[in-house]
Amino acid sequence: MKIAILPGDGIGTEIVAEAVRVLQVLDLRFEMEEAKVGGAAYEAHGHPLPDATLKLAQAADAVLFGAVGDWKYDTLERSLRPEQAILGLRKHLGLFANFRPAICYEQLTHASSLKPELVAGLDILIIRELTGDIYFGQPRGRRTAVDGHFPGALEAFDTMRYSKPEIERIAHVAFQAARKRNKRVTSVDKANVLETFQLWKDVVTEVSAQYPDVALDHMYVDNAAMQLVKAPKKFDVVVTGNMFGDILSDEAAMLTGSIGMLPSASLNANNQGLYEPSHGSAPDIAGKGVANPLATILSAAMMLRFSLQQPEAADRIESAVRAVLASGYRTPDIWSEGTQKVGTREMGDAVVAAI
Amino acid sequence: MKIAILPGDGIGTEIVAEAVRVLQVLDLRFEMEEAKVGGAAYEAHGHPLPDATLKLAQAADAVLFGAVGDWKYDTLERSLRPEQAILGLRKHLGLFANFRPAICYEQLTHASSLKPELVAGLDILIIRELTGDIYFGQPRGRRTAVDGHFPGALEAFDTMRYSKPEIERIAHVAFQAARKRNKRVTSVDKANVLETFQLWKDVVTEVSAQYPDVALDHMYVDNAAMQLVKAPKKFDVVVTGNMFGDILSDEAAMLTGSIGMLPSASLNANNQGLYEPSHGSAPDIAGKGVANPLATILSAAMMLRFSLQQPEAADRIESAVRAVLASGYRTPDIWSEGTQKVGTREMGDAVVAAI
Ligand SMILES: CC(C)[C@H](C(=O)O)[C@@H](O)C(=O)O
Ligand SMILES: CC(C)[C@H](C(=O)O)[C@@H](O)C(=O)O
Repeated sequence: MKIAILPGDGIGTEIVAEAVRVLQVLDLRFEMEEAKVGGAAYEAHGHPLPDATLKLAQAADAVLFGAVGDWKYDTLERSLRPEQAILGLRKHLGLFANFRPAICYEQLTHASSLKPELVAGLDILIIRELTGDIYFGQPRGRRTAVDGHFPGALEAFDTMRYSKPEIERIAHVAFQAARKRNKRVTSVDKANVLETFQLWKDVVTEVSAQYPDVALDHMYVDNAAMQLVKAPKKFDVVVTGNMFGDILSDEAAMLTGSIGMLPSASLNANNQGLYEPSHGSAPDIAGKGVANPLATILSAAMMLRFSLQQPEAADRIESAVRAVLASGYRTPDIWSEGTQKVGTREMGDAVVAAI
Repeated sequence: MKIAILPGDGIGTEIVAEAVRVLQVLDLRFEMEEAKVGGAAYEAHGHPLPDATLKLAQAADAVLFGAVGDWKYDTLERSLRPEQAILGLRKHLGLFANFRPAICYEQLTHASSLKPELVAGLDILIIRELTGDIYFGQPRGRRTAVDGHFPGALEAFDTMRYSKPEIERIAHVAFQAARKRNKRVTSVDKANVLETFQLWKDVVTEVSAQYPDVALDHMYVDNAAMQLVKAPKKFDVVVTGNMFGDILSDEAAMLTGSIGMLPSASLNANNQGLYEPSHGSAPDIAGKGVANPLATILSAAMMLRFSLQQPEAADRIESAVRAVLASGYRTPDIWSEGTQKVGTREMGDAVVAAI
């Protein structure tokens, strides 16, 4: 088994280093190979996703990814910006199923913006389709408008699209995940306005017939954005498209108050996967040794479970993280009165020790 | 001056009736004429936006709108569903500028999901472009995919688009609104992925040169969804496209805890406008006399200010609503221990009395 290690930019290198240490201490039989990605790859090789990095990722069973991006690349043309690396990896590896748990850790309930009773014990799984929708639809670009409000003017455009089999496969992922949880799926669409999401709704409904044991409901995306704020615990599994999933998964992550703790997995049809923390590259605190490595460490646990068939090892990491939180260790982002403030490295040490 | 009164469905009739009473007691010189819209119009005339209703709205200086929609119309084909009425009115009246204030009323701070210190005094203005974007872009429909992941499969698609002048005019609206407030505009885009929103960002930046007294920042939509939860008071004016605005304005409205209180205005280039509460038709409580009419009454105040050039009358309504809240009157949606529970009609009475 082979793992591609892509630390990326900003705090990526620091947090991935801790996850690698945790993986090493488990003493499992797999190989790890590191490569540059994002801004770091652009600086070294002129492209955010160099061929060698892509090949390494494709040949690996799993990719452990840190984070990419920095303000300093904002002025590059779009095709050279760090985010293109993550979009390229999703596309070339066919990582269509993005798992974004939004969990509120008991010890961190107070860190949520929401009142504690609304988030205590929160455990939602957002499943976002990741290789379709307006992210990849063609045609897209700039042109002269031929109709609309200002014919003759410059306009920019993108294409939203989903095919039936794309919707079917992500729906199956969602229903199967719900079976292992509370057996409820909320499919989020905008069928009242968009053709794409009328098809989405029709197909998800059709697939649901194969899962009579799972309850399905449909919600418009604007309403979902509201209900997440109002009563997040009413959700179990949420399944939606790439664009809506981008927005809702971040909203949900933030309202847990535990964003420094949330892992994510992006899988293809062969269970090859990319694993990354839900948070970003945080260039403002990069290199200071204060970033929270736990989301990345928990992403490594998801990797062991989903792509490397090592569920016991995954359990060991997750228990160790819980133990470390229970002992009161906190990086600055989750620190509160009465707990022990530690840096990135010490947090990694604590998890290693707990394993 | 002429006002078209379109109560619509669900609680629409009850809440609009109270707003009309409030308008009448002001004793101003304008005419009001009522027509059916949404499901009610479909039942009576076979179409959610009958010609006569559209003509009335076009001929009026302003439209006071209740709400449309009910589960029972969910099985109708899309073109006959109640929401088409609101989309049709926006399109035919050219209502491109949607103002959605997200205000947390002092007495209702406790009703927010968020911790009181995060929302107390909150006052954001979301400006959503309302006649462009993927809501109206052509082409859209179903077809056989020729490329993508599943060539040959059925797919559905929509077109996102914005032209430069469309972005310019909404940007001007936002900067001008910010000038009357705290002089900060946050433009929300997804320029890292979408061509449409790269143009959006470029054009908003260009327009901002004409407003050196207003500070502009740019935020990705996923981050905006997070920051609204984390620190909503950091925003002043938020300007964004139709689709992102739909999601973010609802998220923001819900986090104030005051959703039964929030008005909205949708204006065209001639200040002709449609005014409606931010909440929906709530079919579950329709006809029970318990719906909160204050968002609609406050929408009438916005109408007086923006379309009917009656700022003093608008002030009188807004002061009356504040007075009524201060006296402790509450409809069930905003009721809490120690306040006086009243129905729709009594709430209307209280506002009328306060005027
Ligand atoms: C960086 C960006 C392209 C990306 C996305 O929009 O998918 C990010 O927001 C994410 O959610 O992983
Ligand atoms: C009813 C629907 C078409 C509408 C929209 O999406 O614009 C509504 O959600 C709104 O925000 O007014």
